[in-house]
Amino acid sequence: MKAVLAYSGGLDTSVILKLMQEKLGVEVITVTVDVGQKDEFEKIEEKAYKFGAVKHYYIDAKEEFANEYVSKAIKANALYEKAYPLATALARPLIVEKLVEVAKKEGANIIAHGCTGKGNDQVRFNLGIKALMPEAEILQPVAEWNLTRDWEMEYAKKHGIPVSDKIYSIDENIWGRSIEGGVLEDPFAEPPEEVWEWTVSPAKAPDEPEYLTIEFENGVPVALNGEKMPLLELVLKVNEIAGKHGVGRIDHIEDRTVGIKSREVYEAPAAVTLIKAHYDLEKLTMTKWLLEFKEFVDSKWSWLVYNGLWYEPLRHALEGFIDEAEKVVNGEVKVKLWKGNAVVVGRHSDNALYDIKVATYEKFSTFDQKLAKGFIELFGMQSVLAYNVMHGAKTVTSISELKETIKEIEKLAS
Amino acid sequence: MKAVLAYSGGLDTSVILKLMQEKLGVEVITVTVDVGQKDEFEKIEEKAYKFGAVKHYYIDAKEEFANEYVSKAIKANALYEKAYPLATALARPLIVEKLVEVAKKEGANIIAHGCTGKGNDQVRFNLGIKALMPEAEILQPVAEWNLTRDWEMEYAKKHGIPVSDKIYSIDENIWGRSIEGGVLEDPFAEPPEEVWEWTVSPAKAPDEPEYLTIEFENGVPVALNGEKMPLLELVLKVNEIAGKHGVGRIDHIEDRTVGIKSREVYEAPAAVTLIKAHYDLEKLTMTKWLLEFKEFVDSKWSWLVYNGLWYEPLRHALEGFIDEAEKVVNGEVKVKLWKGNAVVVGRHSDNALYDIKVATYEKFSTFDQKLAKGFIELFGMQSVLAYNVMHGAKTVTSISELKETIKEIEKLAS
Amino acid sequence: MKAVLAYSGGLDTSVILKLMQEKLGVEVITVTVDVGQKDEFEKIEEKAYKFGAVKHYYIDAKEEFANEYVSKAIKANALYEKAYPLATALARPLIVEKLVEVAKKEGANIIAHGCTGKGNDQVRFNLGIKALMPEAEILQPVAEWNLTRDWEMEYAKKHGIPVSDKIYSIDENIWGRSIEGGVLEDPFAEPPEEVWEWTVSPAKAPDEPEYLTIEFENGVPVALNGEKMPLLELVLKVNEIAGKHGVGRIDHIEDRTVGIKSREVYEAPAAVTLIKAHYDLEKLTMTKWLLEFKEFVDSKWSWLVYNGLWYEPLRHALEGFIDEAEKVVNGEVKVKLWKGNAVVVGRHSDNALYDIKVATYEKFSTFDQKLAKGFIELFGMQSVLAYNVMHGAKTVTSISELKETIKEIEKLAS
Amino acid sequence: MKAVLAYSGGLDTSVILKLMQEKLGVEVITVTVDVGQKDEFEKIEEKAYKFGAVKHYYIDAKEEFANEYVSKAIKANALYEKAYPLATALARPLIVEKLVEVAKKEGANIIAHGCTGKGNDQVRFNLGIKALMPEAEILQPVAEWNLTRDWEMEYAKKHGIPVSDKIYSIDENIWGRSIEGGVLEDPFAEPPEEVWEWTVSPAKAPDEPEYLTIEFENGVPVALNGEKMPLLELVLKVNEIAGKHGVGRIDHIEDRTVGIKSREVYEAPAAVTLIKAHYDLEKLTMTKWLLEFKEFVDSKWSWLVYNGLWYEPLRHALEGFIDEAEKVVNGEVKVKLWKGNAVVVGRHSDNALYDIKVATYEKFSTFDQKLAKGFIELFGMQSVLAYNVMHGAKTVTSISELKETIKEIEKLAS
Repeated sequence: MKAVLAYSGGLDTSVILKLMQEKLGVEVITVTVDVGQKDEFEKIEEKAYKFGAVKHYYIDAKEEFANEYVSKAIKANALYEKAYPLATALARPLIVEKLVEVAKKEGANIIAHGCTGKGNDQVRFNLGIKALMPEAEILQPVAEWNLTRDWEMEYAKKHGIPVSDKIYSIDENIWGRSIEGGVLEDPFAEPPEEVWEWTVSPAKAPDEPEYLTIEFENGVPVALNGEKMPLLELVLKVNEIAGKHGVGRIDHIEDRTVGIKSREVYEAPAAVTLIKAHYDLEKLTMTKWLLEFKEFVDSKWSWLVYNGLWYEPLRHALEGFIDEAEKVVNGEVKVKLWKGNAVVVGRHSDNALYDIKVATYEKFSTFDQKLAKGFIELFGMQSVLAYNVMHGAKTVTSISELKETIKEIEKLAS
Repeated sequence: MKAVLAYSGGLDTSVILKLMQEKLGVEVITVTVDVGQKDEFEKIEEKAYKFGAVKHYYIDAKEEFANEYVSKAIKANALYEKAYPLATALARPLIVEKLVEVAKKEGANIIAHGCTGKGNDQVRFNLGIKALMPEAEILQPVAEWNLTRDWEMEYAKKHGIPVSDKIYSIDENIWGRSIEGGVLEDPFAEPPEEVWEWTVSPAKAPDEPEYLTIEFENGVPVALNGEKMPLLELVLKVNEIAGKHGVGRIDHIEDRTVGIKSREVYEAPAAVTLIKAHYDLEKLTMTKWLLEFKEFVDSKWSWLVYNGLWYEPLRHALEGFIDEAEKVVNGEVKVKLWKGNAVVVGRHSDNALYDIKVATYEKFSTFDQKLAKGFIELFGMQSVLAYNVMHGAKTVTSISELKETIKEIEKLAS
Repeated sequence: MKAVLAYSGGLDTSVILKLMQEKLGVEVITVTVDVGQKDEFEKIEEKAYKFGAVKHYYIDAKEEFANEYVSKAIKANALYEKAYPLATALARPLIVEKLVEVAKKEGANIIAHGCTGKGNDQVRFNLGIKALMPEAEILQPVAEWNLTRDWEMEYAKKHGIPVSDKIYSIDENIWGRSIEGGVLEDPFAEPPEEVWEWTVSPAKAPDEPEYLTIEFENGVPVALNGEKMPLLELVLKVNEIAGKHGVGRIDHIEDRTVGIKSREVYEAPAAVTLIKAHYDLEKLTMTKWLLEFKEFVDSKWSWLVYNGLWYEPLRHALEGFIDEAEKVVNGEVKVKLWKGNAVVVGRHSDNALYDIKVATYEKFSTFDQKLAKGFIELFGMQSVLAYNVMHGAKTVTSISELKETIKEIEKLAS
Repeated sequence: MKAVLAYSGGLDTSVILKLMQEKLGVEVITVTVDVGQKDEFEKIEEKAYKFGAVKHYYIDAKEEFANEYVSKAIKANALYEKAYPLATALARPLIVEKLVEVAKKEGANIIAHGCTGKGNDQVRFNLGIKALMPEAEILQPVAEWNLTRDWEMEYAKKHGIPVSDKIYSIDENIWGRSIEGGVLEDPFAEPPEEVWEWTVSPAKAPDEPEYLTIEFENGVPVALNGEKMPLLELVLKVNEIAGKHGVGRIDHIEDRTVGIKSREVYEAPAAVTLIKAHYDLEKLTMTKWLLEFKEFVDSKWSWLVYNGLWYEPLRHALEGFIDEAEKVVNGEVKVKLWKGNAVVVGRHSDNALYDIKVATYEKFSTFDQKLAKGFIELFGMQSVLAYNVMHGAKTVTSISELKETIKEIEKLAS
């Protein structure tokens, strides 16, 4: 019997790799999907074989991740609970897709992963596998076999699995880096400087600001400072430049899918910068009606992706909305990076609904001030009436009352 | 006949003061409401009398503004189009209330203001007056008499009204400062350093960060760094401290009530800092269901206030929701001010729904990992089923189909 | 050790009553809460003692149910998935409250109920008990002990528990009756006439219509045909009258909390009639802004109650909104009951925002037709502009473009 | 100079036709668009020429209306304020399109229509024309020239224009009929039987029910009782059959675009029947997540169309959502028409998410009851915790508190 294991080369999945052979007697095929984590993939492969994998797959999915996942997140201004750009959440369905591809190709009917039973990733893995390969058996050893860190450490030593003494649990891909554990579990304690890797401290950031001009087509970034480039390259560049200026640190209280509140810390220089720029361009090019409604659409899209509902039909419907809406999101946004700040300071679009001729307070304005009177009157009519009725004014609501009113007026007049 | 005029001492309202006497032959009572704008109120009074006012009222409404208006905005995390903290919008209904009080006391039946026919303030003034004093005649000379700046300048010179050559049009109160006009009308041009008054440039901000601990009760700030103080004082202090660190600059594209898109620039150090802190505390103390729904409530509250619908019953209903929801928003938030950044780095509450015993990844966690299995299965059941049905799986939807299914199984079994 | 059991006198809970003594050796206190189900409560008590209860409680909670639960549902126009008036869902938290009261009074630390593991009621019972008495142990024998109907029947025969051969599973209270099972599980099969008990067939309903005039105060019905009466009495009367006219049959596909879709059939003459009347009065008295937002509030309230989240703080916040909003919902509604139809044919309120003087197309209308021009222009400005920009029109978005435009115009002019 | 006039053959537009020649000296081209109103179009043409039209267009747009407009309304379950199926609102943009086509073809630069300044149709006409032909001048004589009915009658008599003495103002097309005026302006007065033309009184409807089986493909009806037919034909047939059974009478309070509340009365047998059937099929085939969100989408779509914002980009985005969502809305719905009732009594779909094997309470159910425990626990965790925290329970929120807790436990244990 064959099984596929999502393999990171770390303690958990190395222990699981061994245990699966030991406990289940299955042949394990390991799969490492490269979504931009800064790992040494040859060493991971070596380890896989060393701990008994019958076959190892390294799959470079960075471009696919940028083009099919990150681009959607940008178009949706995706920030779960207004804060988290979804980096890990977004990569999970892609990893699942690759695991299932390998499982089908290799004839494996077990798919295993190293998630605990407390986090979000188990939801994303398990629901993805159920959707794409309902016939597969899902194996989640940490939860099912009750693996604790202490036990794993012991087991690791016995089997020559290297054990690091890192305090924090890290996940990263091109769209962001998450840091969990240790003192970060205390929500009143400031994250120590050591947790940050992609961003410098505002104090050490350059004194001079740096400007980025980002060009968008249909809501997706296509050029940086006038140079066209694939989205993957663009994201990597912005991560580097914005990180250098200390942009992209996130610290907030988050609601996990399973109902737990947790304190989460992220670094996401490109995500923070590009979503800000993108949303600003939407404000320039979309009508207020569209903007107002898209807020709900975006919020729901992020919610679905965070909660592992990638295969839910609602996601497709929301994207039907978004793709139509983004048709006008073309143009350039100028962002100033400076001491931890990413600030939009300029935007331009041929689809702009901003018209200086109309908006200006100067005398050449083409806006007819006389129009406001009727607008204000009718726009506010019900609210004003409601206020007055609440304070004693009377409306005439039936024909009999109406007749009385008319009679009274006639009496007064005669 | 008597009229009341909202008087700022500036060119527009001084010209209007004169013109009202000239054109309408009315006695004009001028009213200046102090909501924290940095003006010389004695000079305004002098001017009022100089240009013919029969009576002048200076009304200090700063405390009322903080307690009855700003507090509500904080509880609603009020940011119109996710950016504008509503400073001017929030003060207008209070100013209207004062104008109407004076008008009723003085027996005036005309209320005049200096708004143009292109902006939002006319909506706020006119709807407020219609609600509170439907019998009053509203006079809006800039729009109704077609006053242009050139004509006003000429008229001013003739009548000894001082003319400044300021480029920008400014409005300010304790909750923020707005800057309009000049190069700011070009949305691709970065706001020049000269427009900022309340905030220093991140480059000139202190190298050392400064921490503020803000204590909230029922969603309203009540103490700063452990010292209890009235909201007015607290807001003024935070404006000063956060401004010193370059916090609170806002630049975005905004939808005015009358349908125009405009580029708006604001400074609001306290608003930016306090709303961030407040929202973070909500995340700690409110359930995810409440947080998710409150997002819509907050957004609608801001929309109403921005658009001059202060007297709309929906506002009261939304506040019914908010006041109930804020009962748990008690505790402390630690904010780090640094080089233009205001970042929440710690939060604590006796109402916290965060429980380190449950959330921790350490072994002492009290969370039972076995629970997740059933949760994930049922949480994702419909999405998974929908995906599978879309890809060819069949559900049994009628009793006759069911019988056939059972028969087939029996056949197979025999 | 003592346990409390929610006891209906039916097969399931009688078997459980016996089993709890047998398996757990506990003393069982049975509790029957009367929320209007048409049961013989003396016989239930007899049975309880016969099958071994050490004590039995009959609690008449009908008035409390009407005043504290049904009234809220009316104010929220509560229809889960636009169809189900929540009868059973609404009664569960009240029953739980009574169970907990008894448990605390009697010093029992087990609370048992007869719910299966497939439905909604287990969610409502279990979450209610966890909230009100977190220290209690919840016992759900049907799911935990895997009781099947066949096994129960056998066990019942052995222990003298009477077994009915009813096809349908019924739950009822004053707010409605639900019917499940048998042919109703086939969503393409029409419910047979035999399932209906509270409503006559439209064919057999009287030829003459009957009119009800329902008076509301703050959104709650207070009088019927001019006669003031408590809500309980009013609901019972409307059930009888509307049922006689065939009003209140409901048949729809419903999403259960646990993720299952089911076909549900209900009878709810009063609920259907009163909610229709109530909503119509809201349309007369609430501003469009309030109506539009309340739709979301109502929908969420129903969702919470259906899903057993009665103790969720969001419910209180929503009710904060609703109670404020309902202040204007005063007046009379005339409903015509006829052959299965309940149609609102008249409504009147001193809080009406309808004003015949304004609305009329007759010449005495006080509405100034001139106002519409400015309103339409500004109301539609962005949409029209967006359409034109999408079809090639150009806005001027920067000062440099503006200058060029001005130059071009000057050239043309010269 | 040439003008195009939307011509109905009635008093208003006949007077306008004459007046336009008289007052403006323009050549008037009349256009009558047939969207299913029951008119004698040859007589209208005769009248047009008689009263001076230089050219008359009769345009049969019934099929286009069904396929491009009504189909969208069905997919959106379009009911403005949960009541009005939008018949008139939906036809206006199509009529505008035809007017503009004629104007462009004929080189006319004035487009005129007979709307008053108080209703919704002026908004729909004017915004449509502005979008499609911004260079056109819009002429709205009833409002602009202050035409009153008395004056029109007098003028009509002088010019041989026939004057009817109808009490009600009617508009109709295949999707519905609206009746306004007279006693209907009294919201407490029941509509007299004389206003109904398409529907019989429930009292006179057949004693026997009639069943319709409606088949949908991608959310659009394609067959009736097993017979495939174009949507136009299907709608006409359902109007006839459902009308015969008294189905489709609507009476509610409505918020007009201009802010007025009015009492509106409609007949729409097909709209009421088809939307009910359609929504029921959605419940069978869509996930709960999709259903819940689509409620907002549908509601907003109806709002836009009602308010004349047909050309607003948000409509296209909403339709992007809807078209994606409707892909699964395939199957059959059985509706029972009887004495004014249209009740869905059966539904079937190959895309059904209802699965009798899962949903059944019978023993062959495949649903694993054990799953519910974990689900309920995590689903309700935050609400239960929040309730308990509100009632005094303490969470551990910092590491120092945690250490104290651990110490206390150790003390107790030792």
